[in-house]
Amino acid sequence: MSASVAAPQHPPTEGVPVSLVAPPRLLAAVTAELADFLDDHAGLLLDVHPDLTLLADLARITVLGGGKRLRPIFVYWGWRAAQPAGRDGEDALIRAAASLELLQACALVHDDVMDSSATRRGGPAAHIRFADVHRARQWAGAVDAAEAFGRSGAILLGDLLLSWAEEMFSAAINELEPARAAAAARHFDLMRTEVAAGQFLDLLAQTRAELDVDEALRVIQFKTSKYTIERPLLIGAAAADADADVLRVLSHYGRQLGEAFQLRDDLLGVFGDPSETGKPAGDDLRGGKRTLLVALAAQRATTRQRAVIERGLGDHDLDSAGVAGLRQVLTDTGARSAVERRITECAERAAAALGDAAVQAPARQALLELAHVAAHRTR
Amino acid sequence: MSASVAAPQHPPTEGVPVSLVAPPRLLAAVTAELADFLDDHAGLLLDVHPDLTLLADLARITVLGGGKRLRPIFVYWGWRAAQPAGRDGEDALIRAAASLELLQACALVHDDVMDSSATRRGGPAAHIRFADVHRARQWAGAVDAAEAFGRSGAILLGDLLLSWAEEMFSAAINELEPARAAAAARHFDLMRTEVAAGQFLDLLAQTRAELDVDEALRVIQFKTSKYTIERPLLIGAAAADADADVLRVLSHYGRQLGEAFQLRDDLLGVFGDPSETGKPAGDDLRGGKRTLLVALAAQRATTRQRAVIERGLGDHDLDSAGVAGLRQVLTDTGARSAVERRITECAERAAAALGDAAVQAPARQALLELAHVAAHRTR
Repeated sequence: MSASVAAPQHPPTEGVPVSLVAPPRLLAAVTAELADFLDDHAGLLLDVHPDLTLLADLARITVLGGGKRLRPIFVYWGWRAAQPAGRDGEDALIRAAASLELLQACALVHDDVMDSSATRRGGPAAHIRFADVHRARQWAGAVDAAEAFGRSGAILLGDLLLSWAEEMFSAAINELEPARAAAAARHFDLMRTEVAAGQFLDLLAQTRAELDVDEALRVIQFKTSKYTIERPLLIGAAAADADADVLRVLSHYGRQLGEAFQLRDDLLGVFGDPSETGKPAGDDLRGGKRTLLVALAAQRATTRQRAVIERGLGDHDLDSAGVAGLRQVLTDTGARSAVERRITECAERAAAALGDAAVQAPARQALLELAHVAAHRTR
Repeated sequence: MSASVAAPQHPPTEGVPVSLVAPPRLLAAVTAELADFLDDHAGLLLDVHPDLTLLADLARITVLGGGKRLRPIFVYWGWRAAQPAGRDGEDALIRAAASLELLQACALVHDDVMDSSATRRGGPAAHIRFADVHRARQWAGAVDAAEAFGRSGAILLGDLLLSWAEEMFSAAINELEPARAAAAARHFDLMRTEVAAGQFLDLLAQTRAELDVDEALRVIQFKTSKYTIERPLLIGAAAADADADVLRVLSHYGRQLGEAFQLRDDLLGVFGDPSETGKPAGDDLRGGKRTLLVALAAQRATTRQRAVIERGLGDHDLDSAGVAGLRQVLTDTGARSAVERRITECAERAAAALGDAAVQAPARQALLELAHVAAHRTR
C-alpha cells in the first residue's frame, strides 16, 4: 500500500471550535459511528476481493480525514430544539446524523472530479489519489490511463459513499417510531434532491456569459443553505416530533445562516489563508467560480476593472500577480465589504429568528453560537 | 427545448419477449410507477427553478427510454417463488421492484461517462445529450466547455437517480411488515455495495497487462450476476418471507444465470447486430473491454493471433477491417464457441437448480423461461 493511501489517523474535527457548539461526546460519537460503519463495510469489500483495499482505504481517508461535521451537529441541535438531552432514540439519531458525512463525502469527491480540483483539505483530492496509485504501481494503459482511472475510481467511490449514506441513515432512523422515522426520511429525501438541483444550477450558472446576483443567491440557497443547515436541522427536529412553530423557526434560521455560511466560504476561497483553508490561494478564481462576490464586483466595476475580471476569472494559468490583481478589483469595487456586510446581516437575522420561540434553551444557545462561528470562521 | 432532449414516448419494453416471462400487467405497472415517480420529482425540480427542466427531461429519457426491466422482473418472480399471486403487499413490492430501474439508470449514465461511450440504446448517451444542449444553445465557456458540462451534468444526473432509487425503494418496501422490509432492504444494500465493488474490480482488470480468466469471472459475478439476477430475486423472496430452501435455490439459479447473461452480453458486444443491440459494432473492442471472451482468446492464441489482439484491443481508432480481424481471432482461437458452450452450461445449471424444489410452480415456469431468454437473446 503506497503512502498516499495509508489509512488516516482520526484527526480532531477541524474548523469549528468544538467546545462552543457541540458536546464533545457528540463529535466523538459521530466519528466512532462512521469508523464502525466503514470498518464493517471495508470487510464486505475485502470479502469480495483483497484488491478492494484501495477502495476501502479511499473511503476512510475521504470520510475520516477531516471535515467540520456541521451537518451532524445541526441534526443533533434540531433534535434537541424539541426535547431535552437523553431522550429515547438519541443514539439512533446520532447514528443517522453521522450518515450525512457520507453524503457530504460523496459530494466532495464528485465535485472535485467535476471541477478538476487537485486539492481537498490540504491533501490530494480522491481522483488524484487514485491516479497516483495507478502511476506508482506502473499499471498498464494508454498515456492518460492514470487520470482516467482516477476519475472513474472517484465516480465509483462517490456512488458507493452515496449508497452507504442512505443505508446508514435508513437503518438508524428506522429505530425510531415509524411516524418520526418517516418524517425525518422525508427531509433526508428532499435534501438529496435539492442538493443535486443546486449543483446543477451552479453548473448552468457557469455557462452564462453574464453574472447575475439573483442566480448566485439561488444557487446558494439550494446547493448550500438547505443542504448544510436547514434540512439537517429539520431532519433532527422531525425525528423529535417537533411542532410546526419549531420547524418554522429552524427553517428560517437555517436559510439565513446557510447563506452566511456559503458567502464566508466564497470569501475564504479568494482571500483565505491556504494554511487554514487547505485550498491553494486563487483556485476559486482560476476555476472561474461564479459567486455572489464576483457578481457584485462585475455589477460595480469600471470598464478597466471589468476587463481585469473578464481576463482573469476562469484562467487556469493565472499567476499570483494575476490573482492579486483580481483580488484588488474585488476589494476596490466594494464587493468584498458588501459580502462581509451581508454575512453579518444574515447571521443576525438567523439569531433573531430564534427569538424567544419554542426552541429549547440549550439548543437555542448552541444555535446562537453556531451562527457566530459559521459566519466568522477562518477556515 | 431542443429535439435531442424531447421527452420520450413510453416505448414497449425491449429485448425480452414479454409474454414469456412476465404478466403484461407487471411491465405496465413498473413503467407506470416509474413515470409517476419521475413526474412527481420533476415537479420538485421545477419548483426549484424552471431551468431544471433539462435535468428532469434527461432523467425521463434515461429511465423510460428503453431497457429490458430484467431486475424488476426478477424481484417479482423472487416474491412469487414463495407465494401465490395477489398476496397483500404486491403493489408495494412492484413499486420497490421498479425502483431498481432508477439504480440501473444511474449505473448506465455513470458507466458511459467512465467509458466515454457516446451511444446508449441506439441514441446519444446522457453526457453527450447534455453536451449537445450546451452547443445547440451556444452557451459560454472555453473550447471544451460543452464536453465538461456534459460529463458534470451526467455525474449529477446519476447521483440524483441513485438517490431517487433508494427513496422509491425505501418508501415502497416500508409498506410491508417491518421484518420483511428489513430483510429485503438488507439485500438491496448488499446489492449496491457489490455492484460498486464489481465495477471497481472491472476498472482494476483494465489496468492489467495480462488478461486473466479467473479475474474476468469474478468481475462478472459481482458486477452482473448478483446485481442483475441474484440480489433482485432475493429482494423479492425476502419480502415474501421465503424460507431458507427457497433463498438457497434462487441464489444458485441467479449466480448461474447471471454468468450466462453477462457472457451473452460480451458476445453481443463483439458479434451482435447493431440494429438490435443499439451499440455500434466493435465499440467493446475499441474500448479495450477485458472480457472472458478476450481472456480465453489470449490464452489460446498463436504468436500471430496474440499480436492482433495486443495491437487492436483498446485502439480507439480501430477501423472496420481491424474490428473484423479481431473478431476472426476471437472465432479462430475457439474462444467464441467456448463462451457459447459456457453460456449453455450455465443456463442449464440455472434451470437444474430450480429442480423440484420449494419454488412455487408459476414462478418456476417463468424462471425456466427467463433462463432460456437471458442466455439466448439477440439484444
